[in-house]
Amino acid sequence: MNVPVALRRARVTALAGGVGAARLIRGVVRLLPPRSLTLVVNTGDDEEFYGLHVSPDVDTMIYTLGGVAPPGRGWGIAGDSSRVLGALRRFYPQAWFQLGDLDFATHIRRSQLLRDGSRLHVVTAELARSYGVESTILPMSNDPVRTVVETRSGVRLSFQQYFVRRKARDSVRRILYRGQRDAAPTPGVLEAIRSADLLLLPPSNPFTSILPILGLRGVGRALRERRAPLVAVSPVAGGRAVRGPLGGMLRGRGLPVSPLGIASVYRGLVDGIVIDAADERLVPRLEHQGLAVAVTDVRMDTLARSVAVARVALDLGQALRRRR
Amino acid sequence: MNVPVALRRARVTALAGGVGAARLIRGVVRLLPPRSLTLVVNTGDDEEFYGLHVSPDVDTMIYTLGGVAPPGRGWGIAGDSSRVLGALRRFYPQAWFQLGDLDFATHIRRSQLLRDGSRLHVVTAELARSYGVESTILPMSNDPVRTVVETRSGVRLSFQQYFVRRKARDSVRRILYRGQRDAAPTPGVLEAIRSADLLLLPPSNPFTSILPILGLRGVGRALRERRAPLVAVSPVAGGRAVRGPLGGMLRGRGLPVSPLGIASVYRGLVDGIVIDAADERLVPRLEHQGLAVAVTDVRMDTLARSVAVARVALDLGQALRRRR
Repeated sequence: MNVPVALRRARVTALAGGVGAARLIRGVVRLLPPRSLTLVVNTGDDEEFYGLHVSPDVDTMIYTLGGVAPPGRGWGIAGDSSRVLGALRRFYPQAWFQLGDLDFATHIRRSQLLRDGSRLHVVTAELARSYGVESTILPMSNDPVRTVVETRSGVRLSFQQYFVRRKARDSVRRILYRGQRDAAPTPGVLEAIRSADLLLLPPSNPFTSILPILGLRGVGRALRERRAPLVAVSPVAGGRAVRGPLGGMLRGRGLPVSPLGIASVYRGLVDGIVIDAADERLVPRLEHQGLAVAVTDVRMDTLARSVAVARVALDLGQALRRRR
Repeated sequence: MNVPVALRRARVTALAGGVGAARLIRGVVRLLPPRSLTLVVNTGDDEEFYGLHVSPDVDTMIYTLGGVAPPGRGWGIAGDSSRVLGALRRFYPQAWFQLGDLDFATHIRRSQLLRDGSRLHVVTAELARSYGVESTILPMSNDPVRTVVETRSGVRLSFQQYFVRRKARDSVRRILYRGQRDAAPTPGVLEAIRSADLLLLPPSNPFTSILPILGLRGVGRALRERRAPLVAVSPVAGGRAVRGPLGGMLRGRGLPVSPLGIASVYRGLVDGIVIDAADERLVPRLEHQGLAVAVTDVRMDTLARSVAVARVALDLGQALRRRR
């Protein structure tokens, strides 16, 4: 493993959303012992479908680290089929949320354990273990936090309604994190942030994946008390979001669709940022803000690219650790 | 439809278990308008699997009348697959109850509606409607009644544990209907019994499929108050149960494995009985007990045989009606 020796025994904690995070993390676990990694995963996109509790971001992480995610698509299970969903359309003609048959097994199991009284972080640990995941996957909270997208016309949509059902085509006025104020981080989250040797912010959408975590009670303080540097990987490259509706959300806040916009959202939080080669001209401005910057191709369409970007992020993190 | 004209407008009510009942009923609905038929279906075999409420006998009836049951096997949905169950074995290595993918959709829907507060008979009606069933399918009770098999060694097993998991290999000491005393029939059951023009007892196992219904509060009285004849089809033929563990259960009670044993279990209840040609020698003894008897081949391995046996049963019922 061509990674700084000092990091091989480091504890690394990442705050993670779905596909963007999975792309980076599948690279990280090829460079570091999986057991050294803790993922604090957004549950603001959780939703009940057909009476079953679905945790899209958590599942993306379980399937990715369990080695069953399809390399290209980034969500669900490779080779999955849609027999159950096909039959469910008899009862729910409007069914719009795609769930595969193998995926249904996960939701059936999760829902049963939750109804039997287990807490989400315990259930998640069991599901992850069943998929052979060695890293620690912590759902951000056992309490319901729901990301709600309010459109310019005033309609409020759950994140999945906005993103999957309506294909992110609505103009977004604002994003709410319902329940966040009353939600506590799951056991282990604050400690994983405080005691990590390196913190990572993968290229997830800050508004829909990371802010739901950052606003949880105690998380801001734990981040201020951290002893490790925090390195973000930019989810925008060459003036566009690498995926999803992030561009419009940045513009809607009057922020540039560039690493500068991302740095602005994460101001005071991030020590280093990995940006795309297409944005290299922004290095001086980012450094002027006190950020350490590394430049690479941040698109991670292949596992090789995921490993390459992960290496750049870990190298940057190690450089920042030495500097402290 | 070559059936007595008088029956074409008759309301027919059948008390039903699973496969044996389905075999007869698929014949009945080829002879009578499906809307004229009400099925009161055993729920003593209901069980929760993987957190989902499964009603095996009700589902067998829905799938049979919905035209999706596999003609040979008698339960489940034709052409179903086992992708979900395969994935569930990751979480439940001991999974022993076979549920197909298309079948899972039914249980997911039922469980959601029940958890949302709908009662079982309303949920059942919706599921049946979704499958295009025109007959009325009434689960016997909205209250939990559970058939428990106590083995000779004193172990108590749910019916599915006894029948499916342990393949009915245990000697049975007695059968309990847990919750039956406190269970009320679902709305419509007593009326369907009292007001029917003909009552049918399909060749289900009396102990595991019919007695759970007969012992419900008010059912005995409704049967005594009925104005219609009641015709049973024998589930034993030529000294053996047509299927399942009925033989041992009759012997365990000191009853013959013959229509005489069945007549004894249903004493005072049945007006007529359809028996197998192999048991023709028993006609005088059955008639001596006051029963009207019709003789045919009671095995219904094909749809044609189901129609033939149904015709014999309906003819016998019509003859008994005229006699009244």
